[in-house]
Amino acid sequence: MQAIRLEQGLLEQGLRLRTDLPVPIPARDEALVRVRLAGVCATDLELTRGYLPFRGTLGHEFVGTVVRAAQAPSLAGRRVVGDINLCCGACAQCLAGRPSHCERRQVIGIRERDGAFAEYLCLPVRNLHPVPDAVPDDAAVFAEPLAAALEIPQQVSVRADQRVLVVGAGRLGQLIARVLRLSGCALSVVARHDHQRERLALAGITAVSETQVEPHSADLVVEATGAPGGFALARRALRPRGTLVLKSTYHGRLELDLSSLVVDEITLVGSRCGPLPAALRLLQQGLVDPRPLIDARLPLARGLEALQRAAEAQVMKVLLDCGTDPA
Amino acid sequence: MQAIRLEQGLLEQGLRLRTDLPVPIPARDEALVRVRLAGVCATDLELTRGYLPFRGTLGHEFVGTVVRAAQAPSLAGRRVVGDINLCCGACAQCLAGRPSHCERRQVIGIRERDGAFAEYLCLPVRNLHPVPDAVPDDAAVFAEPLAAALEIPQQVSVRADQRVLVVGAGRLGQLIARVLRLSGCALSVVARHDHQRERLALAGITAVSETQVEPHSADLVVEATGAPGGFALARRALRPRGTLVLKSTYHGRLELDLSSLVVDEITLVGSRCGPLPAALRLLQQGLVDPRPLIDARLPLARGLEALQRAAEAQVMKVLLDCGTDPA
Repeated sequence: MQAIRLEQGLLEQGLRLRTDLPVPIPARDEALVRVRLAGVCATDLELTRGYLPFRGTLGHEFVGTVVRAAQAPSLAGRRVVGDINLCCGACAQCLAGRPSHCERRQVIGIRERDGAFAEYLCLPVRNLHPVPDAVPDDAAVFAEPLAAALEIPQQVSVRADQRVLVVGAGRLGQLIARVLRLSGCALSVVARHDHQRERLALAGITAVSETQVEPHSADLVVEATGAPGGFALARRALRPRGTLVLKSTYHGRLELDLSSLVVDEITLVGSRCGPLPAALRLLQQGLVDPRPLIDARLPLARGLEALQRAAEAQVMKVLLDCGTDPA
Repeated sequence: MQAIRLEQGLLEQGLRLRTDLPVPIPARDEALVRVRLAGVCATDLELTRGYLPFRGTLGHEFVGTVVRAAQAPSLAGRRVVGDINLCCGACAQCLAGRPSHCERRQVIGIRERDGAFAEYLCLPVRNLHPVPDAVPDDAAVFAEPLAAALEIPQQVSVRADQRVLVVGAGRLGQLIARVLRLSGCALSVVARHDHQRERLALAGITAVSETQVEPHSADLVVEATGAPGGFALARRALRPRGTLVLKSTYHGRLELDLSSLVVDEITLVGSRCGPLPAALRLLQQGLVDPRPLIDARLPLARGLEALQRAAEAQVMKVLLDCGTDPA
């Protein structure tokens, strides 16, 4: 089968399209999934730049069709999305009900486990969530990043009487804004580029420039740039006793004025993966439509080109067609 | 009157005992308070080292007697403690119900306002809280730092089923531990010195050494050292999705791995001043007895010596006797 793999070195040269791979063989508790569509995310681009020492097939946003699942035969033929964290079920974190923080977790396309930029992947049956018929592939493929956006209201209260600012209007920032908008809060999003502002306008969301951000004005700020400048802006925008959600990972370490966090009694909340079933519900109910974020759709065979496109400044979501017919 | 003042320069040489000061004249909404007892805190020592550019009378922990209060004559003769933040009542923070975060606040002994290491001080009547008769002076003088400790359960939920770690067993760490203990949580406190461990033992609190701290074991960690090493230990002790309360200010900036906060979904909470009425209630009900923390009690005239004592490694709380008879 075909797959886009990170195979050696820390540079983009390590990124290869392989066409000679065997179809993977699922373990006893796993399903074999034919990938239909996969989405390119900033983390994929970071991985090609050496953010983590991952080697294997990239990709963690996907919708697929179950080919077979020994322990859940009724799943065969069903369209599914998948939790990206594979947990051991036995460590302290798993037993405490935090499987996405499993101490021995593998993460598809990110950590010790092949991902979704391939014709097939294997995932434990318990990671799979059937996609409602009403949700088309090109919406379902957003379930994973939409779930990540939904993790924010899982962690902090987002209320209609709050002033909320999202810093960053890229792929994830756009989804975050669409989720937070549903609270009825007074929402604005810091956007640098026209193509970002246009997508926000489509969803009825107010875009602002960096210079329009009033200091100490926001009750809740979500940092979605992963850049030190974005963090500084987010911090400046926050009022005393406000909450700053960190939704992006940062390259390297950041110098922080911890005393100011104490004096202003700021709450900083790190936020990662979220609930996939809830994301599917939002898509099914039409509460969020992520499809206007799609800028390109290329076949898996042109996967390297797809990653290049996704890295361009004006490009939002790039999808990979991995074959929509179940094998 | 006498007072211990920071008068010039950033060095301890700027610290002086003045004996020639006039008794201050209260504004219309203020009370004149005869200071009975004042406590020396780490912030006072930091100020003598130039932590903030404060000039004036030091001291923000006190119990005193109201001499006169034009707008509240019934307060005359009452023992009181006082909120240390003087707010404007008109800025966005005051109007939003966060007076301790007033944008134009003065803070006694810390920012633009004379403090309590003096025979007299003036405070707005609304800052004063009468001390119940059952609370002796040498307990009431702890109301301010005890309130700061109580700010933690104001901000985060502290539950009996949680494993809680306090890093640092100095003056503030001891009070924090005594407050958190009341939740029934599984509490341990990282203590470096015998005199710290002894005071914890008096309150039935488990002391541990740094090497005994299990990684990723605590649900809630309070950092009360204000040192980078303390922060690193606190971070290491915290489990994924745990909460780290920052209760101390830090000199300068700290380098932080923000990505790890995102991946582990850590919540960081800055915490400062707390509710004085609640602190008085705890003292009145005997839920916390801070008096075993007192190591020395010196007259105001020996205030410089008192600050030196407070800076010694094995010394916990030093009190200043500012004159216990109302004038």
